[in-house]
Amino acid sequence: MTIAEQVTQQAKAARKASRQMALVSTDEKNQCLLKMAAALETNSGVIQAANEQDLAMAREKGFSQALLDRLMINDARINDMAEGLRQVAALKDPVGEGSRLWTGADGIQISQVRTPMGVVGMIYEARPNVTVDAAALCLKSGNAVILKGGSEAIHTNTAIAGVLKSAMAESALPVEAVQLIESTSREAVNVLMKLNGLVDVLIPRGGAGLIKTVVEQSSVPVIETGVGNCHVFVDASADPVMATAIAVNGKTHRPAVCNATETLLVHESFAREHLGTLTKPLLEKGVELRGCPVTCSLVPAAMPASEEDWSTEFHDLILAVKVVASLDEAMDHIETYGTRHSEAIVTEEYSHARRFLQEVDAATVYVNASTRYTDGFQFGFGAEIGISTQKLHARGPMGLEALTSIKYMVMGNGQIRK
Amino acid sequence: MTIAEQVTQQAKAARKASRQMALVSTDEKNQCLLKMAAALETNSGVIQAANEQDLAMAREKGFSQALLDRLMINDARINDMAEGLRQVAALKDPVGEGSRLWTGADGIQISQVRTPMGVVGMIYEARPNVTVDAAALCLKSGNAVILKGGSEAIHTNTAIAGVLKSAMAESALPVEAVQLIESTSREAVNVLMKLNGLVDVLIPRGGAGLIKTVVEQSSVPVIETGVGNCHVFVDASADPVMATAIAVNGKTHRPAVCNATETLLVHESFAREHLGTLTKPLLEKGVELRGCPVTCSLVPAAMPASEEDWSTEFHDLILAVKVVASLDEAMDHIETYGTRHSEAIVTEEYSHARRFLQEVDAATVYVNASTRYTDGFQFGFGAEIGISTQKLHARGPMGLEALTSIKYMVMGNGQIRK
Repeated sequence: MTIAEQVTQQAKAARKASRQMALVSTDEKNQCLLKMAAALETNSGVIQAANEQDLAMAREKGFSQALLDRLMINDARINDMAEGLRQVAALKDPVGEGSRLWTGADGIQISQVRTPMGVVGMIYEARPNVTVDAAALCLKSGNAVILKGGSEAIHTNTAIAGVLKSAMAESALPVEAVQLIESTSREAVNVLMKLNGLVDVLIPRGGAGLIKTVVEQSSVPVIETGVGNCHVFVDASADPVMATAIAVNGKTHRPAVCNATETLLVHESFAREHLGTLTKPLLEKGVELRGCPVTCSLVPAAMPASEEDWSTEFHDLILAVKVVASLDEAMDHIETYGTRHSEAIVTEEYSHARRFLQEVDAATVYVNASTRYTDGFQFGFGAEIGISTQKLHARGPMGLEALTSIKYMVMGNGQIRK
Repeated sequence: MTIAEQVTQQAKAARKASRQMALVSTDEKNQCLLKMAAALETNSGVIQAANEQDLAMAREKGFSQALLDRLMINDARINDMAEGLRQVAALKDPVGEGSRLWTGADGIQISQVRTPMGVVGMIYEARPNVTVDAAALCLKSGNAVILKGGSEAIHTNTAIAGVLKSAMAESALPVEAVQLIESTSREAVNVLMKLNGLVDVLIPRGGAGLIKTVVEQSSVPVIETGVGNCHVFVDASADPVMATAIAVNGKTHRPAVCNATETLLVHESFAREHLGTLTKPLLEKGVELRGCPVTCSLVPAAMPASEEDWSTEFHDLILAVKVVASLDEAMDHIETYGTRHSEAIVTEEYSHARRFLQEVDAATVYVNASTRYTDGFQFGFGAEIGISTQKLHARGPMGLEALTSIKYMVMGNGQIRK
């Protein structure tokens, strides 16, 4: 069988299973998730043996320590995955939630009810825990899921999917509702992106390159996730201690994630008095500063920023710093260079806080808090399938509801249109 | 300037205007819409003169009478457009509607607020009233709009857009928020479909070919609209009078629209007793029946249906008819051939009604009512920008809310993540 035939066959199996998935009860889904959690723990050895194969290959290919760490599975990580499944089981099921019922033309009774998407395709890189997370969230929301992980984790992902499916076989859920694409070829992704009618939505999770490819080439609807060039604007009236804490947290708490702060915009009057103090702990934590000319004159340790730095998601201990003359200049900079992910202002001036919240076009806008809070768990959604940076369907942290659609149910007693 | 440069420049102008559009008040938007309505009426002569040019060209090209009628503008149609603008002015503004405010991690206060999309691109054919409708709905929902109408209506659309923009010039809204693409080349659409970052969503409205092209080729997110291969299933227990009325209404009330009924599925026990009576008024209204073998044996006037007929949206007085053995066979047929638009059952059996509502995967599912009700006005939305047949973002009739996105506003007092 060609890769195209294989992927299409899996998608057809998923589509068929999705009809059954839409009808299983919340309790049946939860029981299945709990069985999956237990199966992961029981089969920890099998998964770690498969993971060893991936790690050996990755070492051979000279992967960085950071990448090896992302790939690595140990007992603690398996326990985390199992715990994640139990948490998803405890979440409220969004399927079947309805709106009020209302009366339309000629007395037809209309209600809107939340339904599964159908078949969700996840395309992701490296981290094998996504295999568990994505499967759990898609199943809980009544969907079938097609998983296409990175080639570097193929043995681990295959082992995990096998364990999950063995647990499903002892549940009321159709085993075919989880499909792992085992081909590591790019061709598999190319096929998946064109399966309109079989796949309802694709969610790419990973680097900017992967996401760009899927957004540009997929004819299946896509939820664009992740790329975050996030700014913190320190206003003239900002509390210097708070501003420093928010800048340091945004940049250094976890530099490789999408809600990390990449550029610091500083009002000139704040900069003149406090930029040295603000940047000191950043430098102490090893952050490389790339500044505008004013920044470089105020902070000798800063290197000159290039035009490209303003639009770069560094994913690293690098921070671009620009001194601006006003709130408007800061908002214009964000409009020009931002990716509409997470944007923050630190200010004590009410009218500036309000303008920033109203006028900045981003999934999440902050006053006096770290950009690092853009996260399904921090928001209280209890789960996160990704962070959407598009405006359609879902924006910002996506929980279970983002994996559902709606339909209208109309009840009549013989109405016809005049 | 090349077409690509021209379209890109218009999109940039729209993007810039969209920032201002997001901030204008409901009252300012409504005043503008009312001015537009008055301007259309005042400039009726200019628009009709332009329309004459399009009609002359269309006659020369040998357009059918139906197409000429779609294209034609007269006083009554201008009044309808003006009335439409006044109705949109009267609708509730969705922008700024918020969810409850809740507390997330570490005491951050989060609320979700409805925002404009930004820049909406409408690609449509023939009917020039879409120019007015789309502009009105996009402006009311705080968006800028790029309009790409069909080449056959270019003079009419240009005249209408000119009149709308002259009214905008005397309002608080930026004139640049309405952009009509004057090039009639396909190249303009090709450019528009790749303007990620400038255009937030594309909505194609028109024939299946146009919609397929945009869905397949656009990298800008698309809302897929319109293609409706809708079924009515007449169950064994159906009331024959009601079933006949719903079938006749679904097929003949307006055969060229997407919510028209294209295939009738009939339970065999109903068919044996009533199919002759049911099809009589259809035949009297000139409907051509294309039936399965059983249908052809019961209704001599029916011609044999081809496999292709089951998946065809006829847009005409043609109805495919299939006799089925059960509810399950009917639902399987719908799953196989339907476009997930509007599906109806006529039944007196409660458990079948419930199963049909639950199990059929479509934007709108009906019990005992005509498929023709899938419509924003019939649903009471007060407006309709199109009918979505995809599961992302919006499904079914789309009113003003479908033209908006959301953002999260987070207020803190110095929170950083531990």
